[in-house]
Parts: sequence; C-alpha cells; structure tokens
Amino acid sequence: MSAQFTADDYAARMRRAADEAHAAGFDGVLVTPGPDLVWLTGYQPTAITERLTVLVLRPGRRPQLVVPKLEAPDVQAAPAASEMDLRDWSDATDPYAIAGALLPGSGRLCVSDSAWALHVLGLSKARPLVVFEAVTNALPMLRAVKDGHELDRLAAAGAAADQAYGEIIKTRFAGRAETEVAADLAALLREHGHEQVDFTVVGSGPNGANPHHEAGDRVIEAGDTVVLDFGGLLAGYGSDTTRTVHVGPDIDPEVARVHRVVREAQHTAFEAVRPGIACQDVDRAAREVIVAAGYGEYFIHRTGHGIGVTTHEPPYMVEGERQGLVPGMCFSIEPGIYLPGRFGVRLEDIVTVTESGGRRLNTTSHELQVVE
Amino acid sequence: MSAQFTADDYAARMRRAADEAHAAGFDGVLVTPGPDLVWLTGYQPTAITERLTVLVLRPGRRPQLVVPKLEAPDVQAAPAASEMDLRDWSDATDPYAIAGALLPGSGRLCVSDSAWALHVLGLSKARPLVVFEAVTNALPMLRAVKDGHELDRLAAAGAAADQAYGEIIKTRFAGRAETEVAADLAALLREHGHEQVDFTVVGSGPNGANPHHEAGDRVIEAGDTVVLDFGGLLAGYGSDTTRTVHVGPDIDPEVARVHRVVREAQHTAFEAVRPGIACQDVDRAAREVIVAAGYGEYFIHRTGHGIGVTTHEPPYMVEGERQGLVPGMCFSIEPGIYLPGRFGVRLEDIVTVTESGGRRLNTTSHELQVVE
Repeated sequence: MSAQFTADDYAARMRRAADEAHAAGFDGVLVTPGPDLVWLTGYQPTAITERLTVLVLRPGRRPQLVVPKLEAPDVQAAPAASEMDLRDWSDATDPYAIAGALLPGSGRLCVSDSAWALHVLGLSKARPLVVFEAVTNALPMLRAVKDGHELDRLAAAGAAADQAYGEIIKTRFAGRAETEVAADLAALLREHGHEQVDFTVVGSGPNGANPHHEAGDRVIEAGDTVVLDFGGLLAGYGSDTTRTVHVGPDIDPEVARVHRVVREAQHTAFEAVRPGIACQDVDRAAREVIVAAGYGEYFIHRTGHGIGVTTHEPPYMVEGERQGLVPGMCFSIEPGIYLPGRFGVRLEDIVTVTESGGRRLNTTSHELQVVE
Repeated sequence: MSAQFTADDYAARMRRAADEAHAAGFDGVLVTPGPDLVWLTGYQPTAITERLTVLVLRPGRRPQLVVPKLEAPDVQAAPAASEMDLRDWSDATDPYAIAGALLPGSGRLCVSDSAWALHVLGLSKARPLVVFEAVTNALPMLRAVKDGHELDRLAAAGAAADQAYGEIIKTRFAGRAETEVAADLAALLREHGHEQVDFTVVGSGPNGANPHHEAGDRVIEAGDTVVLDFGGLLAGYGSDTTRTVHVGPDIDPEVARVHRVVREAQHTAFEAVRPGIACQDVDRAAREVIVAAGYGEYFIHRTGHGIGVTTHEPPYMVEGERQGLVPGMCFSIEPGIYLPGRFGVRLEDIVTVTESGGRRLNTTSHELQVVE
C-alpha cells in the first residue's frame, strides 16, 4: 500500500479547495466532519454530534478549525494539525458566534453536503447575509479526480473485493440464510484488508428485485438468482462491486436473457467511457441497451456513482449530469433489471477514466456464475 | 421487554409533533432519516445518503413521506407505513421539487437537526420564502419526555450496562491494551441484549484526562486510574454509564480526592433533580462542588445530556438551558475532572425525573472500584 498522506498533501488539498471555491465564485468552504474533512485533513472525530466542528477554508488565509474543546486533543493528533489554527469552544459558549467571526459578513460560502441543518442554520443566523450552497452543487468535482496514490488505494480495494468474491462463490449458498452469506462476505472483505465494511447485499430470488434489499432471513434455495453487492473501505478508499450468481445449473431462460442484457449494458457503458463525454452519456449507453431489450421500466436507478474516500460521491452517471469525464475520475457502472416478485440482476464494476478510455478496477468474470 | 410500538403509537407521535410545531408557531416539521424519523415512524433506511428521504408533517394533514423509489419497498415494511402516503421519486427527477410541492409557499418549518445541508438548501431553493429552524431549537422537548414503554426500555438498557460493568471489573486490566478491555466491554453489552454498541471508552492513566479519548494501544498498568464510559442501544433505547476504576490498591491521594469530589458533585446534582428546576441548575449543582474543591477549570464539559432513541439528545444539562425538568425526562449526570497528562475521573448515571425527584437507571456502586 502507498505511503500515508503527509501534512503537505493535506495542506495542498485545503489550498486547492479554497482556490477552486474562489474560481467558482465562492468566498470560502465550510467543512464539517465527514468525507470532505477526512480528505482535506485526515481528521475524523469519533462521532458526529450536535457539537459543532467546522473547518473554515478561505482563499489566501490559513485554515481554521472550530472544534469542541473536548475534542481538541484528537485534532492535535491528526495529520494536518500543523496546517490549521484550532479555535476550540467550551460547552455553554456559542460556537456559531465563534465560527461566524471567521466568516465574511456577506457573500457566498459552500458547505459540506452532510453538514447538519442545526449547524448550517446556526451559522446562517450568525451571518444572515451569507448565501450557502452545498459542496456537491458548488464544487461537485472537488474530490472527483483522483491522484496516483488515491488510484492505487482504489485499485487495492477493488482487488480485495474481487478476492472476496472469488472465495464466496466457492461456499455453499443453498440452504443458508442470506444473512449468513452476508456475514461471510463481510468477513472475507476484512480478511482481504478492508478496515470497514459498508454493505454486503445478498438479494436472493424475489429479494433481488429490491435493489436496496440488504440481507434477510430468507433461506436461499436451488434455482435462486442471487445479487451480491458488497464494499467498504481499505486504507481509507472504497470498494463496491456487484455480481449476480445462480444457485444450481438449471437456469430459467428469462434469468439468462436478463443477465445477458445487463451484461451487454454494462459493457456498452464501459466502452462509452473516455475523457470529455458527459456523465449522462454513460447512463444513456447502458439504458439504451436495456430499453431496446424491452426492460427499460425495470432499470429503476441511475447507472453509477463516484467512489473515493466514500462509497457514494460525485460524479453521478445519471440523466441530466452534463459534467465531462476527466482522467482520474472513478465511478461505478452498475446497470440492473428488477422484476418485482421474481428476481433481480445487477452487474457492477468500478471504473477509472484514463486518457484512452476506461480501466476496470474489478476484474472478476461477468458470466452468470453458478454456485452450489 | 415491552411490546413493539404499534402503527397507532407512531400515528399519535406524528400528530403530536405536528400539533406541537403548530403551537410553537411553525407550519410543519420536516424529518429526515435519523432518530426523529425512527421515533416518529419506526423507519430507518439502511444508509443515510445523498438521496432525499423526508417526512412532511403538517397540522391536520396526513403525513407524507418522500422517498427514493429504490427504497420504497423498505418503507412499506416499516411499522408506520399505513399511516403515511408515500411519494417516491426516481433518479433523474428533482426530489426537491416533489418535496417542495408538499410544503407551504411561505411560513416557518422545523427540520431535523441532522438533515443534510444538501437537502435543506435544496428545499430552501424550492421554497425560498420558507424560514427553516432546527428541531432542537424549535421543538427541543419533542422527544424529551418519555412514556412508560420508553422508560421500560431505557431502564432495561441501563440494567444491561450495569451487568456489563459488574462483569468487566472482574477481568484483568493490568497488562492489557485499552482496546482489549474495550472489546470485552462491547461484547458484554451485546451479551446483555444491546443490539448496537455506540462507544466503549477505556481511558487509562493520562488518556483518561482526554474526555473524548476512546480506547488506544496503551497498555494498562498497576497504579492507573481508568475511565470506563460505555453504551449503546437495547430494543432501540440508549444506555450510557461511566465508572472510574483503579488498577491495584495503591491509590494516589489526589486520585482518591478527585474521585470523592466527582462523586459528591454527581450526588449533589442528582439531589437537585425535581420537576420544575431548570436544566442549568443541575449543571450548576455539580459544578459548584467541583469549583469549591478547586478543580473548576478541569471540569471542561456540561454535566449531562438527554437519552432516548439516541445516546445524546435534548435536554442538555448546561449553563444557559432554562428549560424546566418534567417527569419522564431522562438524561445523564456525568461530572468529571481531567488533569492533563495525569488522569481523569468521571462518574455517570442515567437519571429520570419523577414527581418526587430523580430516579437512577444505573445502580452500580459509586466507590472507586479497585481492579486487578
């Protein structure tokens, strides 16, 4: 695995965020605990709470971190501590006044997508003339283009997820509850280096037709189609892959047909990836295949999402997203078809954009894998 | 354990929230995934994401739940599903327009504390004349007064945490890393019925002086003072208790003195609890004891926080909080003294308000427990 990111790396990211905000017409960036703060500073509080923590980035100024006094010792241990001034506040003082004093009196600021309403509304009261905009809308591509070290980590996470898949398909499915297979998948992800497992979807038979089903008590049986969608973080970067398997060799012709369509959709979308094409064109490429095969109404989600220090982030491969692809972007391509009450099929690889097209970070077979 | 909450229970809570909002001058309540949504509907999505889910409660109207189409099947399985209209939305449509159409054109709405900025700012653009206020500020006491079933669950969670404490102090501390003791504590909480462990702080020696330290690699040794602060959810309701133990019988006189002061502070605050006194008076009662003993500058946090479907919620026992105590409120009383670089002592019980004063939901000894 690549070396730890240094204080200099974080300082450069913070400067870049402030500069990109300035270029986009904003006077600064407010970053609350979550993925943006991890990416910018390496700091992640043990819990995200009602106590305000906010990083204030303004062009040409030193970063300021407003933090509860209780949590200041944790910040001092963070890799970027030397690159920020700490402004700690105690219970029974007003953190919004303290943070507000670091903000311009008017203008526009962008703020972390997941900042709490409590905090944004509190800051807005302290600075009523400031207009706030979510980072996703203001600087959607801030974290989207990965550098070489980040790509190394994403590739390592993808390879680990692939190893987990290679092992789970050797285990028995028939006769076990979805939750048991899910627990095995989670253990395999950890065994192959993930420090965090975010999801292990096991959707068997009709459960596979609910794309958000996780894993339940249903006992898997011969003849089931099973959607396996799993991922988490390895060295702080995400994996996310989906394969659909079949229990036993007696495959219903429609399952086989739907799987072929999804596979062709995934491949067609992958082939569309190259610098400059719009995100929505990746979605359209997948969708056209599925629509042409007569299953359009059963492909009920977008084709993909970015991945990095989180498993879901911009850029989104969705109709209406005109952002052009840039080398270094990483995202999922995951078309699916869901036949309510019957079964679902989804196929997902993480893909990165290179100068010459897409590169897959998941490389296990796209065949409809038969399991026992 | 008490019976499951029914659809009627949830319907009553939703009505009460809308009515209380109306009485407080608001035109409705917007509830995003998190503890308010769990309390109001029993629904908890598998993940909180960039896709908008929001419950719209307005006085005299049927509750409306805006939900991603992908997640609609999960909602239909929620206990309160029959009491809400679902408004699902698909990727590539605008959820803020859909939710916005359910809101008044102007007026005031309260919104979950932890609603994402992305969502609040999106709704605000859809309804620019509406003024938003965080639920904690608008309806701080919405979930604060617990009914009998809720108290049963909180008492059960407290009793389970007490059992975990009773067992952890029989294990060996000296020679083990904090993280090992923390893992044992987590396992004990689960063994005694917790379905979720939120924190297992093990702060030994100087680590105990950082009230937000969780557990690290430090190996505990004879002579250490160790802060144990642990809790989670049992049947959906929280536990949170702290005891400070000492490794071996050779107790430094200042450790003993500090422990006595913290214990007296905890008891004095507990004795102050009765209907009608202000939350800040509970804080003052504890603080006066610590200040009088000369340790005021080392008590660096508020005295307590509410507990319910979360382990941190209003009411807060903090200077400036003039809310009066009401029978059925539940909160922590947890004074502490933290001597930087040396050790920390904290003592925490969950307490509920009754007509005649406080009742402790944690009942293990307040002595400075000697462990091996």
